Amino acid sequence: MPLFGGIEAGGTKFVCAVGSGPADVRTFEFPTAQPDETIARAVEFFRGSAPIAAIGIASFGPIDPNPKSPTFGYITSTPKPGWRNLNFAGAVGRALGVPVAFDTDVNAAALAESQWGAGRELGSFIYVTVGTGIGGGAMIDGRLLHGRLHLEMGHIRIPHDRLRDPFSGNCPYHGDCLEGLAAGPAIEARWGRSAKLLPDGHEAWDLEVEYLAVGIVNWTCTLAPERIILGGGVMEREALFPKVRVRIGELLDGYLEPPEIVRPDLGTHAGVLGAIALAARISE
Amino acid sequence: MPLFGGIEAGGTKFVCAVGSGPADVRTFEFPTAQPDETIARAVEFFRGSAPIAAIGIASFGPIDPNPKSPTFGYITSTPKPGWRNLNFAGAVGRALGVPVAFDTDVNAAALAESQWGAGRELGSFIYVTVGTGIGGGAMIDGRLLHGRLHLEMGHIRIPHDRLRDPFSGNCPYHGDCLEGLAAGPAIEARWGRSAKLLPDGHEAWDLEVEYLAVGIVNWTCTLAPERIILGGGVMEREALFPKVRVRIGELLDGYLEPPEIVRPDLGTHAGVLGAIALAARISE
Repeated sequence: MPLFGGIEAGGTKFVCAVGSGPADVRTFEFPTAQPDETIARAVEFFRGSAPIAAIGIASFGPIDPNPKSPTFGYITSTPKPGWRNLNFAGAVGRALGVPVAFDTDVNAAALAESQWGAGRELGSFIYVTVGTGIGGGAMIDGRLLHGRLHLEMGHIRIPHDRLRDPFSGNCPYHGDCLEGLAAGPAIEARWGRSAKLLPDGHEAWDLEVEYLAVGIVNWTCTLAPERIILGGGVMEREALFPKVRVRIGELLDGYLEPPEIVRPDLGTHAGVLGAIALAARISE
Repeated sequence: MPLFGGIEAGGTKFVCAVGSGPADVRTFEFPTAQPDETIARAVEFFRGSAPIAAIGIASFGPIDPNPKSPTFGYITSTPKPGWRNLNFAGAVGRALGVPVAFDTDVNAAALAESQWGAGRELGSFIYVTVGTGIGGGAMIDGRLLHGRLHLEMGHIRIPHDRLRDPFSGNCPYHGDCLEGLAAGPAIEARWGRSAKLLPDGHEAWDLEVEYLAVGIVNWTCTLAPERIILGGGVMEREALFPKVRVRIGELLDGYLEPPEIVRPDLGTHAGVLGAIALAARISE
C-alpha cells in the first residue's frame, strides 16, 4: 500500500502527516509563521519521512481548489498577513516533486469522516467546524460539493437580537454573520475571556445554542443533509449538543425532520487524515 | 421521438402538457380543487391526447421524491386541505398505466432550465421561485440536489429589523422566515394590496430587495452556485434585478464573488417543461 503525505494548514498551526489512513498515520505539528519558513518546515518533515506517492493539502481559505483554474492551489483573499494570493500547492509540489491535491480544511475533514468516520454510508452530510472560524464542507452522493469554488457556510447572515446580545460581531468582512457572532473569537470578544474558561451554566452558551441552531436550520433548508457532524474547538463543549438538538426541533417546528447532529469520529485528526484521503484520490 | 406527459401541480393551478420539449409542447391549465376531482381532470386530458411513454409530476410540497422510499410519490406535510399524505404519483400512475417521475416544482424547473434555458452548460446553479411561496432547486454537475428529501430554501431565517419592518411574517410554520417576509402573500399582507399593484417606487420594493439579497447571500455561502435564476410572479418586477445585484455585492463585501443573477429563459413554462424532462429521464 503506497503512503501519502498530508498537510492540514491552519491559521495558527500546521499538522503534517504520512500514512495511508487512521491506522498508520504519523503526525508532526508546528505553529504557522510566515509562508516561506512554514512551508520549508513542512517540506523538511516530508523529506525526512518514508517516500510518498502524492501529497494532499487541507488549507484555511478562501482558496482556489479548482484544478482547471489558472490560480489552482492558491490561497486567495485571506486577511492573514503574507498568505494572500500565495501559490501554496505550487510551492509544496515543486519542493517535493509529487502530485498535489488541494482543498479546504473542512472539505478534507468531510472526506475523512466519509471514509473512516461519522459520514460513512450516508447519501449526504455536512461537516462543520466551530473554532477560530466557522466553516463547512458537504458530501453528496460520495462527492465533495464545490460549486463555484467552495462553501463559506460560516458567513451566512442570521437574526441578531441586539437587545439580547449587544455584541456587534467581529467578522472583518460582515460584522455579525454567523462566524462573527458564534466562532470562538466572537465568544471571547463578547465575554472578555476564552470560551474554554466559561462554565457550562454561563449565559454565553444559551446564545451560542441559538446561533448554531439557526445556522444549522438554514443549512438544512438549503442542503437537506441526513446528518451534520459538528467539530472544532467550541464543539468540545459536550453540553452544547443536546441543547442545539432541542432548539433545532423548535425552529423547524415540524415542517422538516431535523438532521442528526453528531460529533466527529476522527476528532482533531479529521483535517490531516482528509489531506491524506485527498492525496489518495488523485493517485487512483 | 416519444412524447411525454407533464403535470405542474401548483397550489392554485394545474398545468398539464404533452410533448418532448419547448418546441412541441401543448399545455392545458385549470384551477387546483380537491385531489380526486383535480387528478381526474388531468387524467382526462392525457387520455384525450397523443400516447405518452411516461409522465412527470412537478409538485408543490413538501413531497417525498425518493424512489426507494415507501412513501415515494406522496405529498407529505402540506397545510393545503385534502392534499396532505396523498399518494399523488400512485393515483396518476394507476389511472394512466405509465411510469411516473415525481419531484418538486422547483427541481423540475431547474432541470428544464438546465436542458433548455439559463442553466445550460453550468457546473452549478440554483433556480429560485418567488411567488406564492419561495422555493429553490439546485443543479450540481448535471444532477438535481435532493439530500434527504428536497430543499426548502425559502424557510431560512434571516435578519428582520422590526423597527424598519414591523410586519411579523406570515409563514404558518416559522413566522418571519424568508418566505414569511418576502413571498407574494407577505408583501400583500404587509401593504394591504397585491404586490402587482404596488408601483416601482414604493418602499415595499426596498424591503423586498433587502430580504432577497440576504437570502441569496446565504444560499451562495452554503451552495456556491455559479448562477442564480430568479423566477416566479414577484420576480416579474424587472426593477428588482439591478437593485438585488447591487445589494448582494454590498453584503458579500468582496469576500466572495457574487453569483450571476438572471431571469429564467423558459418563463412560466419552466415547471411543466421540467415535468416532461423528468419523464424523459426515467425513460432513458
